[in-house]
Order: sequence, then structure tokens, then C-alpha cells
Amino acid sequence: MRAVDVIRKKREGGALSADEIDFMVAGIGGDVADYQWSALLMAVLWRGMTDEETAALTGAMIRSGSEVDLSETPGLKVDKHSTGGVGDKTSLILAPIAAAAGVPVPMVSGRGLGHTGGTLDKLESIPGFRVDLTLDEYRAVLNDCGLVLIGQTAEIAPADKFLYALRDATATVESIPLISASIMSKKLAEGIDGLVLDVKTGDGAFMQRLEDSRALARAMCSIGRGLGKRMRALITRMDQPLGRAVGNAIEIAECIQCLRGEGPDDLVDLSIELAAEMVLMGEVASTLDEARERCRRTVADGSALAHFRRVVVAQGGDPHVIDDITRLPQPKGSIEVDSKLAGYVHRLAARPIGHATMLLGAGRSRVDSAIDPSVGVIFHKKVGDRVEVGEPLCTVLVNDQPGIEDALSMIGDAYRVEEGPVIAEPLIVERI
Amino acid sequence: MRAVDVIRKKREGGALSADEIDFMVAGIGGDVADYQWSALLMAVLWRGMTDEETAALTGAMIRSGSEVDLSETPGLKVDKHSTGGVGDKTSLILAPIAAAAGVPVPMVSGRGLGHTGGTLDKLESIPGFRVDLTLDEYRAVLNDCGLVLIGQTAEIAPADKFLYALRDATATVESIPLISASIMSKKLAEGIDGLVLDVKTGDGAFMQRLEDSRALARAMCSIGRGLGKRMRALITRMDQPLGRAVGNAIEIAECIQCLRGEGPDDLVDLSIELAAEMVLMGEVASTLDEARERCRRTVADGSALAHFRRVVVAQGGDPHVIDDITRLPQPKGSIEVDSKLAGYVHRLAARPIGHATMLLGAGRSRVDSAIDPSVGVIFHKKVGDRVEVGEPLCTVLVNDQPGIEDALSMIGDAYRVEEGPVIAEPLIVERI
Repeated sequence: MRAVDVIRKKREGGALSADEIDFMVAGIGGDVADYQWSALLMAVLWRGMTDEETAALTGAMIRSGSEVDLSETPGLKVDKHSTGGVGDKTSLILAPIAAAAGVPVPMVSGRGLGHTGGTLDKLESIPGFRVDLTLDEYRAVLNDCGLVLIGQTAEIAPADKFLYALRDATATVESIPLISASIMSKKLAEGIDGLVLDVKTGDGAFMQRLEDSRALARAMCSIGRGLGKRMRALITRMDQPLGRAVGNAIEIAECIQCLRGEGPDDLVDLSIELAAEMVLMGEVASTLDEARERCRRTVADGSALAHFRRVVVAQGGDPHVIDDITRLPQPKGSIEVDSKLAGYVHRLAARPIGHATMLLGAGRSRVDSAIDPSVGVIFHKKVGDRVEVGEPLCTVLVNDQPGIEDALSMIGDAYRVEEGPVIAEPLIVERI
Repeated sequence: MRAVDVIRKKREGGALSADEIDFMVAGIGGDVADYQWSALLMAVLWRGMTDEETAALTGAMIRSGSEVDLSETPGLKVDKHSTGGVGDKTSLILAPIAAAAGVPVPMVSGRGLGHTGGTLDKLESIPGFRVDLTLDEYRAVLNDCGLVLIGQTAEIAPADKFLYALRDATATVESIPLISASIMSKKLAEGIDGLVLDVKTGDGAFMQRLEDSRALARAMCSIGRGLGKRMRALITRMDQPLGRAVGNAIEIAECIQCLRGEGPDDLVDLSIELAAEMVLMGEVASTLDEARERCRRTVADGSALAHFRRVVVAQGGDPHVIDDITRLPQPKGSIEVDSKLAGYVHRLAARPIGHATMLLGAGRSRVDSAIDPSVGVIFHKKVGDRVEVGEPLCTVLVNDQPGIEDALSMIGDAYRVEEGPVIAEPLIVERI
């Protein structure tokens, strides 16, 4: 077999066989040159991939590394994956909830890039918290705490790491088969039995059009089911930031509030909904209603918060932040953005908010950028809220970095206030 | 500027600016990774390039190396380029003719690959003939002989060499803008004032469909004219091999016959026609009829053959082969392929003949394959000829290599003999 023939076949619109895909993945760093892979990636962007090809690519990427064996942990292990959004911190709420409800949650998360935040960055704003566990530590924490929160290890899907970096450098990121295979290879290698997907759609999402989000959700479910995993996807709206906080430490604080039963409705409801899907998938409840009820109870009885505390301790973090959120990194100052108009918030655009917080230092413009955990935005008004002239729309948490003026102006422009009342659209668009 | 943004722009169907193309070409081996270039090449295959982009790419590739200065050689310097065919040896006939008619011909040729032969390989079947002259030798031979016949030097268009190899490994060869820019960058860097193109079309050509050949011819003419060069393209049929010989030494022998006035009509007529276009372009004649007449005279008066002899001597070759073609490499044996039917030759397919002679050892399956100069095929019957049962269609010149049986069967199958008479179609399809 020759790489050039495989590339030509895809270039001409053909479907690659599992053998051809295995050959290309096995050849990474060996018989298949990087420049051949990037040509193939561009041909895939052009011609697409069938479900069979995408599943074969996922399987080959999983086999490029270790598959974690979690069979010693009793029960069905379930994880959640979000395609990323602004203020999307549900992972850190639903993982302790699902764990407290009795579903083991082995969670492998990523870092933020561009306008979207990352779970690992948020976790690292807890002093001492370690996300780089070994696979042995990963298994041990899961068994002790019922959940574990780490980043992708070197052993998991190294072919995906290679292709991810290559796609980033060759403008071949935006392909549903490639995105699906990348996500699913990482998730399926971590030893789970099922996966709940939160596929975002709208202005602040990676996929802005509903049909693209739906295609991505279907592609991922097809891969997972083809490999014998339980799959469920919720398509959820990401037009405005989720919850009332965007940043890192400030999002951890909001998660703790939610686990105390004091969080904002949109964030709490979506977290409970996703956790309930995990609980149903894990066969701890037999209906979605029962699962929801069980999840809400873990918040009410404090067991979800206790699970969070336990995992923070197990992974080296300072548990005192849970009782006193002022122990989280604090910014030097804060600036209020006031409304110039009276009326109702008709829009609070997620993407410019994401870009503005990146400018403030909360996110990464490049893979190797450093993060400032203390900065961010707290929203006092969201879509549907009444606001008067001069009333604060949000508070921007800042340090002394340059770019504050630009960020403030982007945040102000992200709001649109109009006269008539408006109701925010429901978060959950559909289930697959 | 970042390579990834340039790739994305092309991927989305945009036209690259001259600056962007310069950045990518200048970055070869430096800031732009090979895997970025190959992704861009695949995006170009997908999205195409405008005439402006193709001209900018050609210019950037020329500037990646030296441009030969031939201003010390008086007169308008004219070369010819063929897109390649089977038995296509016109270069070695028309170059001495045009030179004898008074047009300096600085000719940079290539090697054979796949089913098509290469001028350099044919020349090297003349004992001692050197095609790897330095640029100083190149200028000197041109001034002494009126023509010079060499291969691409390391100084000429190194970016094209890099991209040519990359395209070969990444299935990105078949793109009219990339083919045009590759050919034109080499040709225009050699110091010419004008170029006559022989763009082949049909079964044995690189471009099998007339509209593709026409598009390639137009793209190359547009590039050349945009860079201030005189351009003329003939689109010519390549359905059956040109002349009566396919191989290396055997094609040199046929060229010598043509220069003696003893060649087959199709080959002589096309060589004269292309040479006449060069003579007209070089302003040695003022009409095409006058140019044709002048070219025919150089054959009749022996001056074309004298020019060929002179360049053979100047480039280290044995001139005795011109008087005694048995001094050229001879095969160990020959096998006749006889007709099983009586009738007329309706088809003699060029492409399988090319593949069969490659199998015999006359061509290359890979860039680094060795060539056997002595093997090949001599055709006794071509399209339109009457043939009886048992009469020889052709003679196959062989050595002891494996694959002879396969080659013989391909050659037999390339012929189609039917009852009714047929007339071969005219070689020249159109002029651009």
C-alpha cells in the first residue's frame, strides 16, 4: 500500500477502507510523511468521510495508544463531553452530581482555546489542583471518589495529538468527521461505557448552524454506538454565556454555588439535565424523571458538594476554597459596565464575550499562552432581563494587563438593549 | 503573515495575493513547513487558481533560483515544450532545424516518467553525450552551435523541484495551474524570449480530453505573455505513437533519419510545423509559409543535420552514430508481432505502447529507475495502413528482462484491425 494512492482515492471522492485508514494512522512518524497526512486531511475536508470511514479512523487512533481498563471499578462508567462554549462549566457541576447519584465518572477534559474556556484551566485556579495524574492515579481517584478530573495523557490516542496539531497548522480543523474522530478517540480510550454529549449550537459555539451541530452530534453518536458504547446527545443553545460568570476562578466559584443549590437557573437546569442523562445511561435510574429527581436530591442533601470536596482533596487541591471562595485567585480591580438605555436585554452575544475575556487574560490566543485565573466577567443582566439607564449590566474583573479598553468596549457591544420585553429561548434544542 | 491563514483562504475558495504566494514560496525549507505546502497544494487542486495567481506562482518559483542571462547571444531565443507523449521526439529534430534556420534554441528538457519518454534519456543513448552542463557551458554551447540541449540545473527554479517532488508524493499532480506554473517557471528561467508549446491531447497524452489540453495551453500562454514572452501553442493529437519508433536509441536513429530527409511523414510534418512557429516567433521569417519553406530547406541542404552533429560533439557525444546508427546501443534480440486479421489498422493506442516499452526497460516506473537505451518498438503498420493475416505489425526490440511476455501482449492488444478502410485524423487540432 502507498500513501499517495490513499490520498488520490480520497481526493477523487472515494471511501477509504479500514485497512487504508489503519495504514495511514500506523504510518504516522514512520512510512507516511507529515506532508502526506496533511494532504489527506485537506482532501477529507473537500470530500468528507462516510460513517464507516470515521469509525475506522476513530478506532485506529484509539489503537495508536493505550485503552484504559476500568473494569475493576464496578458499575457503568459514564462521561460527558461538551463541544465548548462561553461560561460552559457544567462538567464541574454534573460530575460530582452524577458521582453522588452512583455513576462513576472518569472525566478527561481539555484546555481552553480561542473564545471558549477549558475545564482544566478552571480546575487549576484551585490552588494545588493537579490535572496531570498518571493512569494509576486516575484509576485510584475514580475508585476513591467516584469521579476523577484529568487532562489527556500521553498514552491516550497519540495519533489524535499528532493529527490535532497538524490540522491546526494546515487549516483543516473544520471537518465534522475529523472533529468527531478526534473527540471520540480520546473519550473512548479512557475506559467508559457511555458518553453524554452536549453539542452546542449558535453564535458562541464552534458550530454556529443547527444543521452542522446536528451532523456533528449524529457523527459522534454513530461512532460511539458502532464501537459498542451507549451514546446520547443534547443539542443546546450557546447564544449567550451559560450562567452568570465567565473566567476561571469565578467559574469555579459559580460551580460551588450551584452545588450548594444557589446557582443560576440556566446553568443548574442544564447541569441537572445532563447529569440525569448520565444517571439514566448508568442504569442507576430507570426513567429520566427519576434520574432528574435523584440528581436534584444530591444537591439538596449536600452529597454532590461532598463528592466535589473529596475529588479536590484527592487531586491535591485546597478544599478550603469550597467554604471560602475568596481563597480563589482574586483580581486587582473591577469595572462596572452600565446600560445606556432602558429596556430589555435582547442579546448578550457569547462569542465577543469569549474574545473579550481572552483579551483580559482568561483565555488563550495560542496553545502556549498563559492564563490569568482571576479575571473574567460577572453578568447581572442576561437575555430577557429588564434594565434601567445607568444600571450595571455586568462587572468586569481585571488586572493590569493591556487591552482592557478593547475588552470593555467588546463587552458593551455584546449587549443589545431594546424597548419591548423578550423571553430567552429554551436551552435544550433537541436530543439525539 | 501565517501559512495557516493562506491555506485557509485557498481552502475557502479565495484568490491568493502575489504577496501571499511569495510568502509561501520564499518559506520553502524555512518558515513554511512541507506539510503546510502539501495542504495548500490539495486546496489548489480543490479550488483552482486564477490566471493572476498562476502567474504569481510562476514568478515566485523563477525568483527562487537564477534566471539565465542570454543577452550576449544575439537574436530572439526560442524554445519548444511538449507536454509529453509516446514516440514524441520532435525536440531533437526541430531544435537543429530552427537553429540552422537562424533561431538560437536554448533547450532545457526533462526525463521520461510513466508511459512517456524524455528527451534527456534519448540523448544519453548517444555514447558520451552529457546533458548536465554548467550554466557557463550552456551559454558557450548555445553561442557555438546555435542550440544546446540540457536538463534542469540546480540553479533553475529550485522551488519547482521541491513542489514537483511534493506533488508526486501527495497526489496533487493533476492541477492545470500547478502544471502550468511548473513548466513555465523552468522554461522562463532559462533566458528565452519566446516559447512554442506542443500540448498533446488524447489517449497517450497527460491530458486526455481536448478541453483540458486547451485549458492547459491557455494557462501557459497566459503566464508567458503576462511575463512578456512570445507564446504560441499547438494542440496536437497523441492517440497513436508519433513516428515509427518508440524507445531511446531507436528514437535517436529516427531523428537522424528525419534530419536526413528520410523520416516518416507524421513526425517530419509536426517537427517542421513546430520549427516553423519558432522561426516565425524568432523573426527570421515573416510568414508561417516562408518559415516552413525555410525549415524544409535546412533538411534538404544538410544544414540541420550539420547543426545536430555540432551539438553532439560540443556536448561530448560520439558523432559517428550520425553516420552509422548501429553504433547506438543495440538490443540482444527482436520479436515480430504479426497481425491475426486482415484489414486496416483502426487503432494503435499510444498509452499501452508507452506502458509496454516501460516494462521492456525503455522507461521509468519510478524517478530513480534505470533506463535500457536499446529496447523499444518499431511500427510497420500505423492507423490507416492495410495489413494481411500474418504480416508484421511491429518489431519489438528486447533484452533479457522479465516482463517481455506481458509487454508483447500489451503491444498486440494496442492494435485494433478492422475490415473497412480508415484515415488517420490530422495531427494538429488547433493553434492558440
